[in-house]
Amino acid sequence: MLEELKQKVLAANLALPTHGLVTFTWGNVSGIDRQNSLVVIKPSGVDYAAMRAADMVVVDLNDGSVVEGALKPSSDTPTHLVLYRAFPDAGGIVHTHSRHATIWAQAGRDIPATGTTHADYFYGDIPCTRMMTDAEIAGDYEVETGHVIVETFRTRQITPGQVPAILVHSHGPFAFGSDPGDAVHNAVVLENVAYMGLFAECLAPRLPGMQRSLLDRHYLRKHGKGAYYGQ
Amino acid sequence: MLEELKQKVLAANLALPTHGLVTFTWGNVSGIDRQNSLVVIKPSGVDYAAMRAADMVVVDLNDGSVVEGALKPSSDTPTHLVLYRAFPDAGGIVHTHSRHATIWAQAGRDIPATGTTHADYFYGDIPCTRMMTDAEIAGDYEVETGHVIVETFRTRQITPGQVPAILVHSHGPFAFGSDPGDAVHNAVVLENVAYMGLFAECLAPRLPGMQRSLLDRHYLRKHGKGAYYGQ
Amino acid sequence: MLEELKQKVLAANLALPTHGLVTFTWGNVSGIDRQNSLVVIKPSGVDYAAMRAADMVVVDLNDGSVVEGALKPSSDTPTHLVLYRAFPDAGGIVHTHSRHATIWAQAGRDIPATGTTHADYFYGDIPCTRMMTDAEIAGDYEVETGHVIVETFRTRQITPGQVPAILVHSHGPFAFGSDPGDAVHNAVVLENVAYMGLFAECLAPRLPGMQRSLLDRHYLRKHGKGAYYGQ
Amino acid sequence: MLEELKQKVLAANLALPTHGLVTFTWGNVSGIDRQNSLVVIKPSGVDYAAMRAADMVVVDLNDGSVVEGALKPSSDTPTHLVLYRAFPDAGGIVHTHSRHATIWAQAGRDIPATGTTHADYFYGDIPCTRMMTDAEIAGDYEVETGHVIVETFRTRQITPGQVPAILVHSHGPFAFGSDPGDAVHNAVVLENVAYMGLFAECLAPRLPGMQRSLLDRHYLRKHGKGAYYGQ
Repeated sequence: MLEELKQKVLAANLALPTHGLVTFTWGNVSGIDRQNSLVVIKPSGVDYAAMRAADMVVVDLNDGSVVEGALKPSSDTPTHLVLYRAFPDAGGIVHTHSRHATIWAQAGRDIPATGTTHADYFYGDIPCTRMMTDAEIAGDYEVETGHVIVETFRTRQITPGQVPAILVHSHGPFAFGSDPGDAVHNAVVLENVAYMGLFAECLAPRLPGMQRSLLDRHYLRKHGKGAYYGQ
Repeated sequence: MLEELKQKVLAANLALPTHGLVTFTWGNVSGIDRQNSLVVIKPSGVDYAAMRAADMVVVDLNDGSVVEGALKPSSDTPTHLVLYRAFPDAGGIVHTHSRHATIWAQAGRDIPATGTTHADYFYGDIPCTRMMTDAEIAGDYEVETGHVIVETFRTRQITPGQVPAILVHSHGPFAFGSDPGDAVHNAVVLENVAYMGLFAECLAPRLPGMQRSLLDRHYLRKHGKGAYYGQ
Repeated sequence: MLEELKQKVLAANLALPTHGLVTFTWGNVSGIDRQNSLVVIKPSGVDYAAMRAADMVVVDLNDGSVVEGALKPSSDTPTHLVLYRAFPDAGGIVHTHSRHATIWAQAGRDIPATGTTHADYFYGDIPCTRMMTDAEIAGDYEVETGHVIVETFRTRQITPGQVPAILVHSHGPFAFGSDPGDAVHNAVVLENVAYMGLFAECLAPRLPGMQRSLLDRHYLRKHGKGAYYGQ
Repeated sequence: MLEELKQKVLAANLALPTHGLVTFTWGNVSGIDRQNSLVVIKPSGVDYAAMRAADMVVVDLNDGSVVEGALKPSSDTPTHLVLYRAFPDAGGIVHTHSRHATIWAQAGRDIPATGTTHADYFYGDIPCTRMMTDAEIAGDYEVETGHVIVETFRTRQITPGQVPAILVHSHGPFAFGSDPGDAVHNAVVLENVAYMGLFAECLAPRLPGMQRSLLDRHYLRKHGKGAYYGQ
């Protein structure tokens, strides 16, 4: 079942090492079939080199049960499910420990919008969640990770459609997309802007952030009905 | 038409990922046929892997109309045209978001001449433009980007012949050359000096800059009639 | 003798350049046969490209004598032997001068646990030893290096089973594992967390360190009987 | 003539891009035949990809005249000759603009000995020359560059045999070796210690430097008659 989506999820997972976003088996990408309420995700702790489309695990969006697949799904599956349920426009989700995005997460700081590379993809700062409470961590941890992400988007009054990435405090990034490949694309851009923002901080600490007008112009050049980038 | 120039423009665009200057489809190179007042430029948002010489778009230097080509030209084409009209010696122009040059642009700072690597190619600091006004950004944005670049060169009393690169504030670099390949060559050097200048700042913040005599010696070793570098 | 272990030790040594942990012949991996009290280790100063399993040297755990092998064992062999004798659960040990772990060693600082990447593998800060005394350095230096490592683990009241890496002051890292390949795996992770910790320091100097509850959760997700990561 | 030395000089030059020490045609390696007082060096400004042994240029040690070769020798040849004349033990010399060594040169600072990686190869700090005077720069520049290097070694009371690398202020590094390949080997190590020293500075600015006893121990482990590293 869902052969096409499994192929897409596999390809998106394999793109992670290609783009230098993961070490060993860290990181996972999923995709969703909204009509059937099914999520396809990477199995837990399997080498990228050995992975096949048939290894992808199909889970139920609502109860998380494994619908198809011989392997255990990624241990982060409950987080993905919370996010798909909260954000109906998300078609793909990726979680990595990519180095520079993770550095911002470890520092507990938002990645400020300080350039057009950022504005071309992210319509504002990329938020970092609050620290989770001891109770959340000791409880249903992966589910609570999802909740703190959702809370952060809502508190900031933004959606993953506008800012398709977020940092979990002391942990690492999640990125969103219209499908699994698009989520990985955004994760690559995130890593780029995290790198550039980090060393821009070295040159000019606590930059004021870019002009609102420039943020608008670049984001809207590529998104929405006034977009004029690409073919 | 312009088959040879199209080949050169294609090759220069393909050199961008080879030298690690671009991610995805970011960045564009153009070249000019001064006799016919025609500019050849990369199409907008097309993968480097799939690009062919025939995909290059020919546009009119003066009115920007597409003279030949099935694809839309780069969205930055109006900036290139302003620059070709202002600087009659420019034979090729490249725009990237290469990481370290962009970091300086995001910090809104000139790259100071602090070593002979810089002086071998750039006859003085590499300027960063002022921030554009909201009116410029909301107006004919890509044209205004060209104008602020031209204004910066004039205010600093330098030409792209002397300092073949510039940073657009909160955005990224443009580099110039005698032809498209030479512009990419300068963009590679720019990225090198941006990297070294960035971390030299970490070791010794706000360096005074190199001696004028050393800047002269190295630049003139490679440029002008007293040059003695190379065969 | 010990053909299988020699193959494992060779493979683990060859993984060092693959993962970018060594330059030239720097670095060495060993493995142990606990039943026979024999340690297999890389020969000293031999190119990785030319190394074969038969070049691996077999030494006696207790007296360090060469039991088999035409080549001299790594000059760091006495350090490895001290560590195997002190830590009966160590099945493999690796020493490198990997760049970012070595930077922390040169700065004489522990790598603080500031994120889940760290917590997934290291159950607390990665300690840096004290400086060795002049007498230790002038004495049986490689043996004394082992002693200061053992002393550090004991003073901190941790074991290599909990925190499978350590930094020797002004020198570089040692990593431990259940076998030679696992030790290299931990050395790769160490280099990752050293990189991320270094630049997190640039963003937010002297971070307080991650929550104890999060450290527990992530470490125990992957280790011990409550573990639920992987297949 | 000197076919073997030309092959060695070619191989050493080709090793520069392999080890990531050069961009484009920057950098040059030479070797010397002390018996015949002849130096073999890379031609000026020729692509590494196209270079052949027959392109290497043979020059006279004493007067710098071209003895054999159709191409112009490297523009840095006069510097190499001054160094070979001053340091009779030098068998190979390399000049690069390798990124991290150059960063220290641009900051005008010595690379302090802060770890055993450094001590294994360099018996003390790697010196940075003083700034050259305007008269030296305007005069016989490449010869004067050699002079300031020689002056620095003498002022510091060290030789390239002890510390086989030096930084020219605002310019970049030169490294020395027993032959051209050994000089490149030292240039690679230099780049490593420059990288690690740079970011150790970020963690712990103005480190006191390593203990003298540790510097001695590591240097003497690999050099002189008490050496016990390698086969």
